[in-house]
This record gives sequence, C-alpha cells and structure tokens, in this order.
Amino acid sequence: MNVLLVYAHPEPRSLNGSLKDFAIERLERAGHAVQVSDLYAMKWKPALDADDDTARQPGARFDPSLDSRKALENGTQSADIAHEQDKLRWADAVILQFPLWWFSMPAILKGWMERVYACGFAYGVGEHSDTHWGDRYGEGTLAGKRAMLMVTAGGWASHYGPRGINGPIDDILFPIQHGILYYPGFDVLPPHVIYRTSRIDEAGFSNVRDALGTAPVPFRRQNAGDYIIPELTLRRDLAPGQSGFGVHVSWG
Amino acid sequence: MNVLLVYAHPEPRSLNGSLKDFAIERLERAGHAVQVSDLYAMKWKPALDADDDTARQPGARFDPSLDSRKALENGTQSADIAHEQDKLRWADAVILQFPLWWFSMPAILKGWMERVYACGFAYGVGEHSDTHWGDRYGEGTLAGKRAMLMVTAGGWASHYGPRGINGPIDDILFPIQHGILYYPGFDVLPPHVIYRTSRIDEAGFSNVRDALGTAPVPFRRQNAGDYIIPELTLRRDLAPGQSGFGVHVSWG
Repeated sequence: MNVLLVYAHPEPRSLNGSLKDFAIERLERAGHAVQVSDLYAMKWKPALDADDDTARQPGARFDPSLDSRKALENGTQSADIAHEQDKLRWADAVILQFPLWWFSMPAILKGWMERVYACGFAYGVGEHSDTHWGDRYGEGTLAGKRAMLMVTAGGWASHYGPRGINGPIDDILFPIQHGILYYPGFDVLPPHVIYRTSRIDEAGFSNVRDALGTAPVPFRRQNAGDYIIPELTLRRDLAPGQSGFGVHVSWG
Repeated sequence: MNVLLVYAHPEPRSLNGSLKDFAIERLERAGHAVQVSDLYAMKWKPALDADDDTARQPGARFDPSLDSRKALENGTQSADIAHEQDKLRWADAVILQFPLWWFSMPAILKGWMERVYACGFAYGVGEHSDTHWGDRYGEGTLAGKRAMLMVTAGGWASHYGPRGINGPIDDILFPIQHGILYYPGFDVLPPHVIYRTSRIDEAGFSNVRDALGTAPVPFRRQNAGDYIIPELTLRRDLAPGQSGFGVHVSWG
C-alpha cells in the first residue's frame, strides 16, 4: 500500500517527531511504501493567496475558488501545490499527524489543506442536479482511498469524553474527519489519539500499521438517498428527531 | 468601546472586504474606537515556530508551550506577537471575521491564534488545585471582554441546520467559540453568519453594531462548580444522560 504521512510539528526531537519516525518504520517494515510531507521541514507556505496561480495577472481581483480552479485546469498552479496533489493521487492511504492546537490542526497543516485542496480537485467536482449535489461526501477525486488522523493532546482523555469539558473528541474532530477527509471522497478510519502527551512513553505508541486495516467510520453518502437535495438535510425517517454531528454517521 | 477586528481574507475587493469596511464604518459611527488586524495585508506569519522567541538558542530543542511562556515572561517575544497581545489588552470587544474554509478559520487566522495566544497569556494561567484547574473557561486574561465571530459560508443555511449535511453551524463553530474564545475568558456573543455568499447583497449586511450589545452564549464556567475536577466532566445531575457540545451551554 502507498501511504502518505502529512506531518506538522516544528521540533523533530518532540514526541510527535518520535511518533512520526516510529510510524514510518512500522509501515515500511510491513511492506508499505511511505512518502512524508514534513510541513515545517519543507517550510510549507501556509497562506492561500493570489500567488498560488503562477499565471495570475498583477492587480486582478483574486477569487480563491475560481482562480484555484483556473490554475488547476491550466496547469499554472504553484509547483508545491501540484506536487502535493500528485502525492495524494499516488497514495492509497493518507495519515495526518499533528498536535491538537486550540482544538484543531496547526495552521501550517490547515494551510496545506486549503492550498492543495484546489477547486476542481477536492471540491467543485461533479455535476449539480436535482438528485446529485456535486461529487462529495462519499464520492470525489479521492474516493477509494483511506485517511486517518494521528493526534496528540495535552489534556486527559476524560476532558475529551462524552461529558468532558472540551467536548467529545469525535465531535472536535468531526469538521476534519467529515468536512475535510470524507468530503473529497476518503474513507475515514477511526482516529488515533494520544492524551496527556507530557506523560507518554513508548507504550503509548500503539500499532499504526494495524490501524490502517480497520473499518472506516460509516459516514452517510450525500448522493445515495439519505439526504433531501438541494436542502441537504437528512431524511426525516433516518435518526428521527435527532440532530447534531452524530446523525451523519450510520452505525446501523 | 474599544473594538479589535481581526480580519482574514486575501482580497480587499471581496464580499469579506466590503463587509469589513461596512463593519468599521458602522462601529465608528456608533462612537466606538476600532483597530483592525488585517492579517493578509500585514503579511502575518502563520506558522508558530522557534523563531517566535527572539532570544532562542540556535540548535536548542523547541517546546511550543515552554518556550512561548519563557519568551512572554522575559519580554523576548517576536514583536508582531507582542503587538497583537497589546491590541487584545486594549480591546473591550474582539470580532474575528473570516470566510469559513473547510469548516474552520483560514490558516493565517489560525496561526494568529496559535502565536498570539502565548502560554501564560491565553493558556497556562492561574493555579491548578483540587478545586481549580487553571484560569480558563470563564476565567483568564481576557475575562470581561466580549468576542464575536463574523463568518461567511458558501453553502445554504439548511446545509448547516440541525440536520444539514455539514453539521449544525453552532457545533462547527464550537471548537472556536468555546475552545478558542471562551477558553481564555471572553464572553462569546452569538455568531453573525452569512450564507450563500455568492448571492449576497447589501441587505445581507445586518447590523454589527447592535450585535455587540446582545447577550453572550451561556457557556458553563469551569471552576464554578459545574464540573468534577480534575476529570473535568460535567456533574451527573446537570443535563443528565446527555452528552456532546450542547451540554456545555447552560440555557437554563
């Protein structure tokens, strides 16, 4: 299997750095081919802007979506963006590894998503009609690939439990797992979360290799009948009377 | 009132640019003093790294929290960080204005939070004891100030409704409103969300000035008795049997 590890931590000699090295070693030993995008080491440019189209007209009004689509279609994207898209096309599985900073991914990784996820690549794909609202949430460019989060968190597991003060970890990660990974087509594997990172030891490094074989989170497909289009609300007979992130997962 | 507007959009001639100008005009006309942090115009450095401490030792292992605290205490923070902290101290109200990109804030704004929210400033504040887990979630450096999100979203309101496919907007914004704003002490005002931004006209610009006077979201205070410390789970008799983001708001 081809595995892309996208990694965002500024210090190689950190727990995250060790965890990354450990994951690579385990994956390669299991026979996988691994590519790593080490965003801090690459000095990845985080901010999406007009310079992301190398053919842009100076002074022209910049539209993040339209200009991103145009650059993709014309082959004028910034080389760093095109290169990361190639890695995504190559990969069978993608791991995003990062410390949970302010309940989300570090800015440098968010900027990787924003720039690499071009319009026409990760969104704005497929037809819009009365029965189909674009290829997303279960369809899309990255369909057939798997993705997984590998996250470290400073707090205790109970702080992120069903009634923990930070909110449940599955809900905190929903905008990433559902909105960033499932959206362009990935099957999302359950996240690997390590809590109380100041106290971690080797035993905390559980087996990433095995994790890649687990069953994906059963998010509901957008265009397969569960949603009313174009309102895109869940059919009334599914999870009746319920609301929130949880209704978009069909544990059946 | 002193109002700080932190704004993140790359194109001044965008809807967001107009909305920013409109907000500033309305706020100033109402007698408020307004400062703007226009992150793209300022070429804000998004990535938190070792260079954020001007006194760092080359080659030393970088610890994001400890080094951030040290730089704050020693007055050796990068000048851009210290300057934004001063703006936060000055402000009575803070507005974060941004387009919702991949269900969160743009990377450049996330990087503003990560760098300006130094350890000892926005987290790692106050005593930890059996009854008090640091000054956060209702206490902290920014207590007594108000904060509000002003967000544009491309999709329809129904897509972000209680059963909409993207998840409820209040849940999508919870990690920001609760985890980033309420955490260091802000009272959080209800967000101002504008949907279907490709179709917006002047009528969509509702009154930001009035919004600053509305009642905050009643998030539960961490150290006021609602939570069991140190597990930091909600007391069993509060919202009994319920879980998720919603239990941390006391609509009472």
